[in-house]
This record gives sequence, C-alpha cells and structure tokens, in this order.
Amino acid sequence: MVAPDRISLNTATVRQQWNLRECIEGCSRHGIGAIAPWRDKLAECGVDEGARMIHDHGLRVSGLCRGGMFPAADAAGRQAALDDNRRAVDEAVTIGAVCLVLVVGGLPAGSKDLPDARQQVQDGIAATLEYARTVDMPLAIEPLHPMYAGDRACVNTMRQALDMCDALGEGVGVALDVYHVWWDPELDHQIARAGARNLLAFHVCDWLVPTKDLLLDRGMMGDGVIDIPHIRRQVTANGFTGDVEVEIFSQDNWWRQDPDHVLATLVERCATVV
Amino acid sequence: MVAPDRISLNTATVRQQWNLRECIEGCSRHGIGAIAPWRDKLAECGVDEGARMIHDHGLRVSGLCRGGMFPAADAAGRQAALDDNRRAVDEAVTIGAVCLVLVVGGLPAGSKDLPDARQQVQDGIAATLEYARTVDMPLAIEPLHPMYAGDRACVNTMRQALDMCDALGEGVGVALDVYHVWWDPELDHQIARAGARNLLAFHVCDWLVPTKDLLLDRGMMGDGVIDIPHIRRQVTANGFTGDVEVEIFSQDNWWRQDPDHVLATLVERCATVV
Repeated sequence: MVAPDRISLNTATVRQQWNLRECIEGCSRHGIGAIAPWRDKLAECGVDEGARMIHDHGLRVSGLCRGGMFPAADAAGRQAALDDNRRAVDEAVTIGAVCLVLVVGGLPAGSKDLPDARQQVQDGIAATLEYARTVDMPLAIEPLHPMYAGDRACVNTMRQALDMCDALGEGVGVALDVYHVWWDPELDHQIARAGARNLLAFHVCDWLVPTKDLLLDRGMMGDGVIDIPHIRRQVTANGFTGDVEVEIFSQDNWWRQDPDHVLATLVERCATVV
Repeated sequence: MVAPDRISLNTATVRQQWNLRECIEGCSRHGIGAIAPWRDKLAECGVDEGARMIHDHGLRVSGLCRGGMFPAADAAGRQAALDDNRRAVDEAVTIGAVCLVLVVGGLPAGSKDLPDARQQVQDGIAATLEYARTVDMPLAIEPLHPMYAGDRACVNTMRQALDMCDALGEGVGVALDVYHVWWDPELDHQIARAGARNLLAFHVCDWLVPTKDLLLDRGMMGDGVIDIPHIRRQVTANGFTGDVEVEIFSQDNWWRQDPDHVLATLVERCATVV
C-alpha cells in the first residue's frame, strides 16, 4: 500500500500524451507527491521554467532521467558523453532531484567487447562523479535487464552495480527498477547489501506475459508476474524511504489512453498491489 | 574455427523447412557431424525410426531437446511433467544422445512466486534424475535468458544452474547457450567453475541489435554482438570436448530461407566467426 503522496510520476509513463506542465498539473490533480522528469520534457520548456513549475506545485523530484551512455567508439565520443553528463548533473541540481539516474550505455557501435564497455562505464561514472560531488548530486546507477546489454546498458545486475559503487566510493548508488531485476535469484541479498546508503531510487511497473516488445511493452503494476510487494518490502526493510516512482513504457496500451485515466489507475494500483 | 564435423545441427534451426529425415540428410550433404533433434521432429517419424536414421547416417547426437517444464499449479500437473520427463529420458537413450536438455519451466499460471517455482524445478529434476541415473542419461540444465523467467525457465544464470547441480549431485550438468548467458559479468568464472564435469552441451547463435521478438529473432553467428570465440575458448579451455550445436529461432529470416543455404551459411560461420 503506497499512498498517492508517496508516488512519483516518471514522465515516461505519459510521454506521448503530456508535456512537463501537463504532467505536473496531473500530479497535483491526483494527489501524487513527486515527479521524475526525463530530460527531453525538461528541455521542451527550459530547465529553469521546469524547476519553477515543479517548485510552485510543491512536488518532490525523485530523480532526473537520465545521464549515462558512456561507452563510445572513440575519445571524442567519450568526451561528448562526459560533457553531456555534466550538464545532466547541473539540471538535476536545478530541479532539486534526489539523484541523477544513469542508464550507463551498451556496446559502442561495432564492438563486441563487453568488459571494455563496462570499464568505459566505470571510468565515465568516475569522471562524472568528481564533478557531481562538488555540487552534492548523487548518481544512481540503474542496472538494466540483461536484454539491454547490447544497446542500452551493460550494467545488468544489482551485484554488478553495487560492485561498481564499492569501487567508486561516496556519491554513487543504485536505482532499482523491479522490471530489470525481478528475475534475479540474488535480488534480496543484493538489496540487503545495498542498504539505505546505496538505494537511491525505486521504480515500479510490471512484466507482462507475453511481452511483445523488448522496450515498449511494460505493464501496469498488477497486470504482470512480478511480486512487487515482496520487493518493496525488501527495499523498505533495508532503509529506503524515498518515493515509489512509476515508469511505464507502453506503446500499444498506456501511451494510447487518456492520461488522467493512466494516473488514476496507477494511484489505485499503488494502493492495492504495490 | 569449428570444422563441419564438430558442428551439431539443432533441428529448430530449420524447423519450418525440414522434417527429421531431411535434417539428417542435410547434415550428411554438408559434412555436419552431429544433430540435436527436438522431440516434435522425433515424434513425427517415430523415435525408433528416428534413431535408426541417425545411426545409419553416422551422426552423433549432442542432445535431445527437451525435457523440463516442471512447475505446475497442482500436483496432477507436476506428475504429468514428471511422466513426460521420464519419456524424454527414454527417447534420449534410444537415440544415443549425449544428454537430455532441460528447459526447466517458468511460473505456473497465476503464480508470482519465483522461489517456489525454482524449488519445484529442483524437486522435479531430482525426481527425474533418480530414473535418468538408472539408464545413464545425463540431464543438462539450460539456464535461459532472464527475459524468459516468467514463462519458460526460472533458472536464468550459470551460477544458479551450477548451484542446483551442486545440490543434486551426480548425473546433472548444464547446457550453455551463448544467447542466454553472453551478458553475464560472471560468465567466465562460472564456466571455470563448471569444468568438463558439468559442461554437457554448448549452443551457439547470436544476439541481434535490435532484437525484434523475445523468442523468434535470434541471429546467425557473426550477425550480432556476442563475442562467441571468447566464450568458445573458455568452454574449450575448461574441458568441453563436445560438438558445437547451432540453434537459431528466426521466424522472419532463417526460417524463410532455403535450408541448404542455412546449413551452408552456418558451416561457413562456424569456420570463421565461432
């Protein structure tokens, strides 16, 4: 049971229907206490205007989506990624985000060298972290489902993300999305290992059976097979006190529905099946 | 570099084009030394006739696909699975297979309880193993990609499969398919842990970027992002001496092509990129 005030709306959930202003006003209408904007929504209205609107509506910001995408085929590409991540850190600070979520990136074009990509990720986070620490913005590594190892994120388990946190030191933790980690036999153990110090964000949606698209067929909580309450209890028992962020990519279902119906549904589901 | 004689054709690779006799004759034409039939192909012609054809063409049998699918919603369902697995063991013996490959099954209908499904899997393998040992048929647990945890296999990593092998004792090992495990940061370590004793089968195909379907969009070796030679070297260095089995589910590409072209292509790719 998660009360509306402890829900965060990730703007991806209604990204086809609403701009940032509409998302913010929607949260207010439905009693949702927090928001997690994607940078494209923020860019549309301007970061300062976005920050002002969020502040004026009294919303918390559970995270900014997203930094990352570190691996590149050459030094220029890697530098461009670092520059972009520095801007993302600044934007996260401007909107008062709890953390900057990192989708770390997959294999550079033409590469099959996963260990190298993973080293590039660690190096990229280390460089970004130097700056992020100076402005007190925590970085949250989001381990993505192994089906994204090639093209989106080569950090694919909680164990791997936490190993990286251990190597990197203060100022970096993890964003745990049930969609990416629910299958992991070690999940409970790694959540306990993370603890309050490293659990920076908690995202929910559901895994549909069958899943028709690798990226854009996530389910509403309760419509799939993830034991979400179990994972939420583990996260809570290990010290996470933040907002429960709802992030649903759903090209053929929720992105086509009336966004007020989407918000009403996720509020109801958070009360009953999360 | 894998010579044709050390290749095994998994019949799924041309399952839309050929029956078992055609697969066997195709192997002979292309100098392929082994075959791995699915049970449906074997059932079409009869197990004894299938065994005779395979023997007459001098093919080795790298495995029978497949047993498993243990979890069920009730005791009757579990017993039906055990009965079917006993028949699968007998069929594997009849065709002289190196092992019976187990796709262990996912969540029973209506369940979200992964730990329970995993326990059902372990119990089901233990029961099947009692019989398999009496007829000297090794069982090969195939960890499937985490994207199949819900509906096909709740054993999703080499670590998990090997932990299960440790718990079950003699007569059970793993079938390693690069498609399912290539992303795993622990892969090299777990291959070394498995060693010759537990590495019973080695399957290859490739992970396409993008992947358009969770089940039926596997790639031909060399067309995707998996560093197959690296994994093959690890498997070989740790004592695997069996055939390299090619198993490609490809609804929109290879299943629509001339099957002799498919075999010629996989023979060429095994020589150059495996």
